[in-house]
Amino acid sequence: RRLGDPEAPFPGFDGSRFQLADPPSLPSWGDVEVRTDADDRLRHARGQGLPDVLRLRAGSLPAAPDAVAYPQNDDQLGSLLETASASGVRVIPWGGGTSVTGGVNPVPDPRPTLTVDLGRLSGLETLDEESGLATFGAGTSGPEVERALRPRGLTLGHFPQSFELSTVGGWVATHSSGQESFGYGRIGDLVAGLDAVAPTGRLHIPALPASAAGPDLRAFMTGSEGRLGVISRAVLRVTPSPETMRVEAALARDFTSGIEICRRLVRAGAGLSMLRLSDGPETEVALTVGLAKSAFEPLLRGWLRLRGVERGCLLLFGANGSAGDVDGAFEDARRFAGEGRAVWLGAGPGKNWRRDRFHHPYLRDGLLDAGYATDTFETAAPWSKVGEVYGAVRGALLGAVEGPEREIPLLCHLSHPYADGVSLYFTFFFRCPPDPDAAVERWAGLKRRAQDAVASVGAATSHHHGVGSWHAPWAPREWGETGTRLIRAVAKELDPAGVLNPHVLLDPADRLDI
Amino acid sequence: RRLGDPEAPFPGFDGSRFQLADPPSLPSWGDVEVRTDADDRLRHARGQGLPDVLRLRAGSLPAAPDAVAYPQNDDQLGSLLETASASGVRVIPWGGGTSVTGGVNPVPDPRPTLTVDLGRLSGLETLDEESGLATFGAGTSGPEVERALRPRGLTLGHFPQSFELSTVGGWVATHSSGQESFGYGRIGDLVAGLDAVAPTGRLHIPALPASAAGPDLRAFMTGSEGRLGVISRAVLRVTPSPETMRVEAALARDFTSGIEICRRLVRAGAGLSMLRLSDGPETEVALTVGLAKSAFEPLLRGWLRLRGVERGCLLLFGANGSAGDVDGAFEDARRFAGEGRAVWLGAGPGKNWRRDRFHHPYLRDGLLDAGYATDTFETAAPWSKVGEVYGAVRGALLGAVEGPEREIPLLCHLSHPYADGVSLYFTFFFRCPPDPDAAVERWAGLKRRAQDAVASVGAATSHHHGVGSWHAPWAPREWGETGTRLIRAVAKELDPAGVLNPHVLLDPADRLDI
Repeated sequence: RRLGDPEAPFPGFDGSRFQLADPPSLPSWGDVEVRTDADDRLRHARGQGLPDVLRLRAGSLPAAPDAVAYPQNDDQLGSLLETASASGVRVIPWGGGTSVTGGVNPVPDPRPTLTVDLGRLSGLETLDEESGLATFGAGTSGPEVERALRPRGLTLGHFPQSFELSTVGGWVATHSSGQESFGYGRIGDLVAGLDAVAPTGRLHIPALPASAAGPDLRAFMTGSEGRLGVISRAVLRVTPSPETMRVEAALARDFTSGIEICRRLVRAGAGLSMLRLSDGPETEVALTVGLAKSAFEPLLRGWLRLRGVERGCLLLFGANGSAGDVDGAFEDARRFAGEGRAVWLGAGPGKNWRRDRFHHPYLRDGLLDAGYATDTFETAAPWSKVGEVYGAVRGALLGAVEGPEREIPLLCHLSHPYADGVSLYFTFFFRCPPDPDAAVERWAGLKRRAQDAVASVGAATSHHHGVGSWHAPWAPREWGETGTRLIRAVAKELDPAGVLNPHVLLDPADRLDI
Repeated sequence: RRLGDPEAPFPGFDGSRFQLADPPSLPSWGDVEVRTDADDRLRHARGQGLPDVLRLRAGSLPAAPDAVAYPQNDDQLGSLLETASASGVRVIPWGGGTSVTGGVNPVPDPRPTLTVDLGRLSGLETLDEESGLATFGAGTSGPEVERALRPRGLTLGHFPQSFELSTVGGWVATHSSGQESFGYGRIGDLVAGLDAVAPTGRLHIPALPASAAGPDLRAFMTGSEGRLGVISRAVLRVTPSPETMRVEAALARDFTSGIEICRRLVRAGAGLSMLRLSDGPETEVALTVGLAKSAFEPLLRGWLRLRGVERGCLLLFGANGSAGDVDGAFEDARRFAGEGRAVWLGAGPGKNWRRDRFHHPYLRDGLLDAGYATDTFETAAPWSKVGEVYGAVRGALLGAVEGPEREIPLLCHLSHPYADGVSLYFTFFFRCPPDPDAAVERWAGLKRRAQDAVASVGAATSHHHGVGSWHAPWAPREWGETGTRLIRAVAKELDPAGVLNPHVLLDPADRLDI
């Protein structure tokens, strides 16, 4: 059972339960394949956020696209956008459909909506092995990227949790970060050049290692979320596949000492590719859910008790490269962990992490079957503010629901570290009302509290899931009034008719769940 | 004798030789100090490019600012821009005045021009030691930055050749790169947040390690060159001062094998902070000019002859950090150099490089006294295109002048490497006609040939000197028509009256030398 599998996009998905209105009259799309059958429209109706799953499981959709287009090249894409722009048809670009921010969801609106599936703009187009530059079509998925590079001994090193389904274009459009971003960088660091098509023109950004020629246009399109144009290909920086990859774990005495171990390691220039610290609640879940399978848990707990650690915080360290580089990185990691009085656990928990790294989203459905809903969100902040962000979010969410169902279990980990700060990733759970509208309403209330807390301490609106529709009410607080006007001016220049993803990035819909 | 020294901005500069027109009637600037005396106007009339020096030495200026303002805070800066915008006064932001692209030069125009000197917006404002974030006023010079950080054991690590005079705001506005950018990154990598003031609003970009909230606004202002707003402060990422710094040299057998050594080292993830390869002509100059002083040259040449290297190419390697890190980096460097059959020279030439690293610009004046003009330009390209760029530029410039003065000595080095490419830095010389107009005309002809060659092979318009006025005819070839429209849309949103640095970045003046 695969999340987003084209044959079964959502577990429990049953197309026959939905009633779709007949599509309105649409313009002629020339030689581009455009389908209006219910199956195509349903499969492109929602992303993979919790409200999406709740709506799809309940058979209750506020809107679906009126048609789905499958352009085969930039010219077809350009002609689609021109036609849509001239006739007021709203356009939603679709990569892997894994948005968790409402980034691909149509809004109920009398104007027709066309979803543009980029699946046919896919594959490795050119490879410059000398420079390590690989050009991929926007619709290329994570496994396709790595499969194309592996025979040449290369890797992109970009492994978001959505890796199995998400695409090159979607990564660039939403500021994706892979699980080893500490080593390989975020997607913005990996993009050397790109092509994008907008209603009023095409943008060709040449692949250059650096340029001093004015504002970096790559940054106009990284994070553009289909609102400023449709990315059709990207030239990505690829690196030699590492000889070896190793993940090991330690247990910090508490969250504060764990944060300090991470901060000191990162600021000392540690050669790690991955660094992650779970807070107490997440560690508890990891030890019971993650390790119980190995029958290792009671032994581990006893061993830790002997060392005076009862409620520690799990640290995961990853390094890749030559055997010597990896040894060097782990020497540093063990030294800093020791100085912070953490207990080294070795490779066991790391093996579980590697095994499960893309599987956690699949747990959501089992939980829903059991009556519990779960969602995640993440932010980023300077090291000096991590404690404040953590406190603000916990304060906002714990006890957020009244009555017998008041407890909102909340887990957190730090990951994706930078010299000057780190991402905080939160997972929350709540008892899910059986009525989908009530469930979505409860989710929206919690989401609002979380984002208000994040914004109140000046942390990032999102670290690697973009703005979409669900973060759009908060992003202007990060940009400021002038910054918001800037982004709007660019959108207006590229898309004066305002047909591209109209509720995403700017101008959110009235309701959080659309 | 200091280049740009406030007491003697240009060697040979004599203010009494210039006749300045009386400034036109200017609006009232409120409580901001604005000076109209000849000395202030002359000192802010030109940058530090070759045509600037030629014009200033000859006492022949096409234009000078009509007044110079010295705002003390963002409010004063904002009020200046509002007044200028309302009354059509053109504004040129001034940091260290070290532009080599005509970025601070007024154009002859009936409308008045106000140069805004940011020297009073300077100094360390706040320091977050935990996160390594230091907030500096835009007018803070390189030495002031390092002096403020050193007592805390920190460094910015940003050492452009203009370090002594150039400023934080100028670095950000022009995509500055320091000599150790391989280790510390370009200025864009070092900017966590910033404030900028434009005629229609202020932009506050919070210091975040990363954010997925839409297009990265930092990239709108990095490279904005005073055209999109005036940067008033930046939050910069600072790092612990390295325990040790080492520079050593080797001699590659030829340019091609030297390039390959660099490429392989960089793609293998070398832990160096600096890597530089001179071509044959530049190596010849380095060996005779740079090493003769040490009486080391004849010995070295004999020693190299014995090893079969007669016309090699100088490689410089720099590393900093802990003693162990530096040893590790040099172990890699020696191994790759050896595999490329380069001869290791040790620390001698590196010492000269460190001694002279900020001094080369001062040689220009001695050369001019002797009747020779020299200028530099730089670009960047993927590794696979380095040979093509090198060939195109040499083809365009060698033999570019007819007659007995036809030889244009041309030197090149690679520096500022990236995983996917590298910067190529060229120095050319020509016999300087005594008439300044003729000298500038000869320079403009060579500059045009060079930039045409760079653009013809799709290399970067500039790697670290920005667009200014002199690269503005070529930058649109890099941006494309749509990219140019994007940048123009942002400029129009922030500065609808078009008063900010009107000939810089976009809309170049008719003549290359203004």
